[in-house]
Amino acid sequence: MTAVQFIPGSSVAEYLSLVRRKNPLIHCVTNEVVQEITANVLLAAGASPAMVVGEGEAEDFVGICDGLSINVGTPFSMRVQIMKAAARKARELGKPWILDPVAAGALVWRDKIIFELMRTGPDVIRGNASEIKFLAGQGSGGKGVDSMDSSDSALQAAVELAEHYSSIVVVTGRTDYITDGTTTYSAEGGNPLITKVVGTGCSLSTLIAAFISSTDSKLEAAAACCAYVKKASEKAASDSKGPGSFHAAYLDALYNLKPEDFNA
Amino acid sequence: MTAVQFIPGSSVAEYLSLVRRKNPLIHCVTNEVVQEITANVLLAAGASPAMVVGEGEAEDFVGICDGLSINVGTPFSMRVQIMKAAARKARELGKPWILDPVAAGALVWRDKIIFELMRTGPDVIRGNASEIKFLAGQGSGGKGVDSMDSSDSALQAAVELAEHYSSIVVVTGRTDYITDGTTTYSAEGGNPLITKVVGTGCSLSTLIAAFISSTDSKLEAAAACCAYVKKASEKAASDSKGPGSFHAAYLDALYNLKPEDFNA
Amino acid sequence: MTAVQFIPGSSVAEYLSLVRRKNPLIHCVTNEVVQEITANVLLAAGASPAMVVGEGEAEDFVGICDGLSINVGTPFSMRVQIMKAAARKARELGKPWILDPVAAGALVWRDKIIFELMRTGPDVIRGNASEIKFLAGQGSGGKGVDSMDSSDSALQAAVELAEHYSSIVVVTGRTDYITDGTTTYSAEGGNPLITKVVGTGCSLSTLIAAFISSTDSKLEAAAACCAYVKKASEKAASDSKGPGSFHAAYLDALYNLKPEDFNA
Repeated sequence: MTAVQFIPGSSVAEYLSLVRRKNPLIHCVTNEVVQEITANVLLAAGASPAMVVGEGEAEDFVGICDGLSINVGTPFSMRVQIMKAAARKARELGKPWILDPVAAGALVWRDKIIFELMRTGPDVIRGNASEIKFLAGQGSGGKGVDSMDSSDSALQAAVELAEHYSSIVVVTGRTDYITDGTTTYSAEGGNPLITKVVGTGCSLSTLIAAFISSTDSKLEAAAACCAYVKKASEKAASDSKGPGSFHAAYLDALYNLKPEDFNA
Repeated sequence: MTAVQFIPGSSVAEYLSLVRRKNPLIHCVTNEVVQEITANVLLAAGASPAMVVGEGEAEDFVGICDGLSINVGTPFSMRVQIMKAAARKARELGKPWILDPVAAGALVWRDKIIFELMRTGPDVIRGNASEIKFLAGQGSGGKGVDSMDSSDSALQAAVELAEHYSSIVVVTGRTDYITDGTTTYSAEGGNPLITKVVGTGCSLSTLIAAFISSTDSKLEAAAACCAYVKKASEKAASDSKGPGSFHAAYLDALYNLKPEDFNA
Repeated sequence: MTAVQFIPGSSVAEYLSLVRRKNPLIHCVTNEVVQEITANVLLAAGASPAMVVGEGEAEDFVGICDGLSINVGTPFSMRVQIMKAAARKARELGKPWILDPVAAGALVWRDKIIFELMRTGPDVIRGNASEIKFLAGQGSGGKGVDSMDSSDSALQAAVELAEHYSSIVVVTGRTDYITDGTTTYSAEGGNPLITKVVGTGCSLSTLIAAFISSTDSKLEAAAACCAYVKKASEKAASDSKGPGSFHAAYLDALYNLKPEDFNA
């Protein structure tokens, strides 16, 4: 069994401070549905979003950005070529990049795309329990984007996946686990209302790109990001009456939370 | 003249309960503008959205989903091929699907696409008065997406269209009419502020897909969906100060309304 | 040094009244990220949005719309062809159109697209200081979409650009400048929180299209639009707790502000 440690509040404070100070520019090749919330989450947290998907510029922009986020939520051939080219370039230039393997295991065509991207060496893979278990060769994947499994059930799969791909793996759910195969952190809290707002998971992946682009301690930074989002989710739930007001309150909370709020 | 009956509150309660219990997975091939609100409306109501548009997976996903929603708000050739293939597959597999013929009558190229999709046998066609009248061979269509006509003026066109295509036709406006050509329901109420929020009409169509995917009584389910949305719109208007706060309050209302709220 | 005059409140009232009365239909070929907020800003202000990007209809729709807005935030080849065709058609038919040269100077491929569009004769070019300075041959452009420079530093560049292209140039920032090379207006106020909400700049460009489509006094109308948005931004900031609630409050303010609110 893997030993799991909480990410301490002092680490959350430290890595959130770095994001606020460095204002990393994140190259987002994400799905059609979540582009606006993804940009707004980055802005609220203190990073800068840029969605660059043109045939003549998506690769070049890897050289300009601080980190890259790739999300296969709505893949189509033209966009998949951009994803692959950007991922290869990130690898070549040593820029950190994260893969969000949305709905892995549900559709054969998509799974091939996901596995090809995984072989291009993402620094972080972030998924829900169904996705991570499928990628680790367990289970059969989710029904669309909904996870059927608790994150606890995917912890061992996350560790194995991290070892196999020499990558950080983040499996999110009621508890988030963040592992590099050797060290495993957890982040707890949050509120289930967040699952009723589209793009909160996808934008978390992109926000992790901002956190890992601001430091060399990528595992701790990814875990800090998860804890920060859990706290924002709790705050938002206490300020809202349903998923519509939650969405606004969540962005407000990401914006208003300060590093010192985690030092208590 | 067609006899029109109100959809009773007990039916709204019944079909909303079914959506909440069955949590139908809806395959959305919709326009670029409304993807986020469409997903959020489905989530708030108790269904699951999936936007799947890839060349290698959109057809396959018809076999996985519970219902399909096609919206031609921003058609372009590549996406139109996906719409046609998904619609044909839905027909082949007997999966329910709905067509939202946005701006029918305004542009010749789009009209050809719409008529081809209509010949693929949608279970439901949902439009505003201008669109429905144009499709029934009356009037000249709308200026863009705005309806020039009241829904009352399109009732007869809706009935004829339903008969001609053996489809359910929903024409929305101040009063919504839901007809299969023989039986016609109406849903009243709502608030005009909803017309100042983009995607509320488009997402209603997709929500109807969720309702009709949960039962064999598709006509009653479609009418129940309209009445549920009217009520959420009224509640949202009373909780908001303009279209921005309405948007959030509308999602909150869809989420918070319970079947028993319609049994009174 | 260019003489600068404030746009008077009576002009803001006048041009806002025209938009509310004429309800101009704006053809938006904009970026993937901001489509929803763009449509909602137009609706809240009293205009009508239409996103038409199909190969067989984007040009034809120029003949139907009252004005065209082109934004190169997320260009890709297929969409760039649509932009060029729509811009040429607008020029041919004498329909007003605006160009938002997002991130000009950051990427060579995009810059070529921008300069080709500029040669097609936009009525208005709207950018931040970095973009306008780059287009005028000064500076090196911005890091992604963030402006590095204050709008004051770009005033001279805006005037020169306006003269060179016989176009109105709007450079936005803490102070907005609106110039045709001879007469220059300014609009002041606003709130920096608006920079934390994606699409507020892009949707301002599209809203300027609505204002200039409602009158022949395009310079004054563009300036009036900027002043209206500054006021809505101030109102929204006073009603919100962060960027999430600002977004909703901003749309509410655009909707609730009346022409007479500017006559005081």
